[in-house]
Amino acid sequence: MPAIEDLTRELARLPGIGKKTALRLTYHLIRQPPEQSRSLAAALVAARERVRRCSHCYNLTEDEVCSICRDPRRDSGLMCIVEEASDIAAIERSGEYRGLYHVLGGHLSPLDGIGPDDLNISQLLRRASDPAAREVILATNPSMEGEATALYIQRQLAGNPELRITRIARGIPVGGDLEYTDGVTIAQALSARREMR
Amino acid sequence: MPAIEDLTRELARLPGIGKKTALRLTYHLIRQPPEQSRSLAAALVAARERVRRCSHCYNLTEDEVCSICRDPRRDSGLMCIVEEASDIAAIERSGEYRGLYHVLGGHLSPLDGIGPDDLNISQLLRRASDPAAREVILATNPSMEGEATALYIQRQLAGNPELRITRIARGIPVGGDLEYTDGVTIAQALSARREMR
Repeated sequence: MPAIEDLTRELARLPGIGKKTALRLTYHLIRQPPEQSRSLAAALVAARERVRRCSHCYNLTEDEVCSICRDPRRDSGLMCIVEEASDIAAIERSGEYRGLYHVLGGHLSPLDGIGPDDLNISQLLRRASDPAAREVILATNPSMEGEATALYIQRQLAGNPELRITRIARGIPVGGDLEYTDGVTIAQALSARREMR
Repeated sequence: MPAIEDLTRELARLPGIGKKTALRLTYHLIRQPPEQSRSLAAALVAARERVRRCSHCYNLTEDEVCSICRDPRRDSGLMCIVEEASDIAAIERSGEYRGLYHVLGGHLSPLDGIGPDDLNISQLLRRASDPAAREVILATNPSMEGEATALYIQRQLAGNPELRITRIARGIPVGGDLEYTDGVTIAQALSARREMR
């Protein structure tokens, strides 16, 4: 049946969804009322067509400028640098951050041919040169590429003595277990230890 | 962003896809070319609108009668009874079966109010009363409900001495490990043991 095979193939193109899961989802959808497939289809097309990049920070948005950049209550002197827009969603869920963001669109990866010009780095440097900018928080992932990207940006910004440049802490995840934590993370957690008051 | 929230919510309605996975899929789709979302959307609507039940065996099909029922090379004296159309796909993948099928549309479940009239059982009895019918293979799942459903159908058909009624074998799955197999399955595998030749 081409319609079933088509849908299964399309679903199996999604990350983390194999052939078997795709087939299970297809059979599920066929058993549901047609409205469910129609509203999922509409949401797919709408998300892909309406969502674009914020012209300031490259966050995902349905407008020219995203709701975070437009929010007058956010601290515009603070800029948090992340690899992907999905990282913004994760930080926002923490409820701890009230500054702005800048999405790089990935990390430096010479082996994959991704250099500084392939990321939104020149736009970041322009934003950071604003006299109102007080601090840049480098929140790229604590991976090899994320660290290299943070280091590269730190060096580009180091010429401005007025600008504070910080890196998010690496350590044992909350709820994590020392016994199952890798040695590099434990070393980071130890060297970043803080006085208890 | 409503478009992102809408798509995430729609994806999270699928079985086995939680809120986090749905969000990850949404971000993935937004990064892909728009054609991918469009072709997934089209496949969703097409599958739900074109696919219906075979008027003979209740398999899923895009035609009035499914390709298995129409295939003149299939043995029409043999009918395999399954709970869901997805079970047909699983049996067909084994490549071992050349007869026809009959989809019940579930199993008997008095606690959920599902009785014989809620399944395609009267249609099955009609098909099995055809003088050409030689054997009915009960391939409902080896669960409590599947066994009860098989037993119920066996009793309905038992009046016809010309008809062979069989049940698929239960046992250790191929590639399975005795050590990790539950006792009921091992008991079934022992009692269904066969002479080695």
